[in-house]
Amino acid sequence: MLAVTILGNNSALPAFDRHPTAQVVTMEDQIFLVDCGEGTQMQMAKYKIRRSKINHIFISHLHGDHYFGLIGLLTSMGLLGRTQELHLYAPPALHEIIGMQLKVADIGLPYPLHFHPLITDGPILRETRFEVSCFPVYHRIESWGFLFREIRPFRRINPDKARQYEVPSSFFDRLKWGESYLRKDGVLVENQAVTEPAAKARSYAYCADTLFDLRTAERVRGVDLLYHETTYLKDLEEQAGRRFHSTTVQAATIAREAGVHRLLIGHFSSKYEKLQVFEQEAREVFPNTDLALEGVTYKT
Amino acid sequence: MLAVTILGNNSALPAFDRHPTAQVVTMEDQIFLVDCGEGTQMQMAKYKIRRSKINHIFISHLHGDHYFGLIGLLTSMGLLGRTQELHLYAPPALHEIIGMQLKVADIGLPYPLHFHPLITDGPILRETRFEVSCFPVYHRIESWGFLFREIRPFRRINPDKARQYEVPSSFFDRLKWGESYLRKDGVLVENQAVTEPAAKARSYAYCADTLFDLRTAERVRGVDLLYHETTYLKDLEEQAGRRFHSTTVQAATIAREAGVHRLLIGHFSSKYEKLQVFEQEAREVFPNTDLALEGVTYKT
Repeated sequence: MLAVTILGNNSALPAFDRHPTAQVVTMEDQIFLVDCGEGTQMQMAKYKIRRSKINHIFISHLHGDHYFGLIGLLTSMGLLGRTQELHLYAPPALHEIIGMQLKVADIGLPYPLHFHPLITDGPILRETRFEVSCFPVYHRIESWGFLFREIRPFRRINPDKARQYEVPSSFFDRLKWGESYLRKDGVLVENQAVTEPAAKARSYAYCADTLFDLRTAERVRGVDLLYHETTYLKDLEEQAGRRFHSTTVQAATIAREAGVHRLLIGHFSSKYEKLQVFEQEAREVFPNTDLALEGVTYKT
Repeated sequence: MLAVTILGNNSALPAFDRHPTAQVVTMEDQIFLVDCGEGTQMQMAKYKIRRSKINHIFISHLHGDHYFGLIGLLTSMGLLGRTQELHLYAPPALHEIIGMQLKVADIGLPYPLHFHPLITDGPILRETRFEVSCFPVYHRIESWGFLFREIRPFRRINPDKARQYEVPSSFFDRLKWGESYLRKDGVLVENQAVTEPAAKARSYAYCADTLFDLRTAERVRGVDLLYHETTYLKDLEEQAGRRFHSTTVQAATIAREAGVHRLLIGHFSSKYEKLQVFEQEAREVFPNTDLALEGVTYKT
């Protein structure tokens, strides 16, 4: 299962009870936090996200609406007695800011905080069953997108068939990855005779604040779910460009060109009270589009 | 009029929909912000506090629950197009933190931000009709209390009497401050013959995170309204001492020893869901005590 829960869907200025950017990605029994605008810890309490289950936090860029809630979350985790280590992936300067805030408060964190500076694109976290990588997007300051991918064997064993063909269980892991088995009596057991296609590994791409740029489509090609910012409606394309943001049509164009399955749009400007038109405009270009609404979980 | 509106009444860890410390003091048509925990700008929106009317912000100390919301508020004021100057009174290190956060975001503020470092006790802001001063309280790190005082002439002119006694209007300001008038014909017009007592100048003292210390009673002697932190109930006096905080009974003792008119208590530990016992315990020592409740305005 790969799912995304929206904690904040607004751009810089909080308005209409919408909050600055934060998302929770659930993948393989792990919870990942992506960006952490002011008030994220309160939003987590509201939507019953268990802070203690978060071991990895990803910060796309150092505009405040994407990280001003981080230091409060980190210190609250400490006050709650956290001891397990936490990994933070963010632009390098954030390390110094956090260090200074802890120093002036004369406090330490009671858990190890591992800071992973985002410097180049590629994998930043790899475990047996998933991988997270970062890629550049195109904002006024350095800004990163994140790509979450499940890693899964692509075949599922049929145990009855495997027994019938006398494949030993010690070979099962290799069966899952598609190998055929050569028995000692010289008989070749074709992989497809004892396995079936497994559920597909899922993927989610998060494109933080960015200009419209078709290179992004290359980065997120074919993902199951794409989040792309849409600060403005399509009539403000010129303003979007000047401010290094995207419109509905631009986000939907990325989704279409990248051949993704589903598009989520968010980071709405506080100039808009109603959001329905965002959905309408995006769907004209890419029908399988949804608004990123706070408190809602989107499954792949 | 001097009044205090509570935006956050909880201690460090937000809980039970209570927020970290922030208060708005209204005095003489000015709005002052005192401390600014995470989410203060959202609380301001909720309780319809006009950000644009705030020209002075006071930060007691650099524990996060008293200032993590500040940078978000400052940048939001900028996004809202503020141009009028803003004065910030805070421990010196905050200047550097704000500077670094603006630098990494590659933004400036479109209004002048004047930083006034808190270094020694005494007046920090003085205008014709009010004065704000700071005084040390006793926390694990440097922490300041703030004293707000209206400045008012203590006599009010009775215009009929003044005319009758032939006091020229050019002398009225001096009448208000208690002077008598010597007429050119040698007649002394006693001040009390042409004036009445004016409404009393009001005062409010804010005691941020602090140990129980009777020196504080000296600092806040006789104020109309005293806010004193009460992180814990009275049975946790030992823990309060270890953590540089106060209990209900300790806060009420300061109020009683200082001879204040009314006591407000807040900064409740997140270990307490119900707050009624705080009020009960404090009232046993100082009956005119109220809980500082979010969204409520307390008038002097």
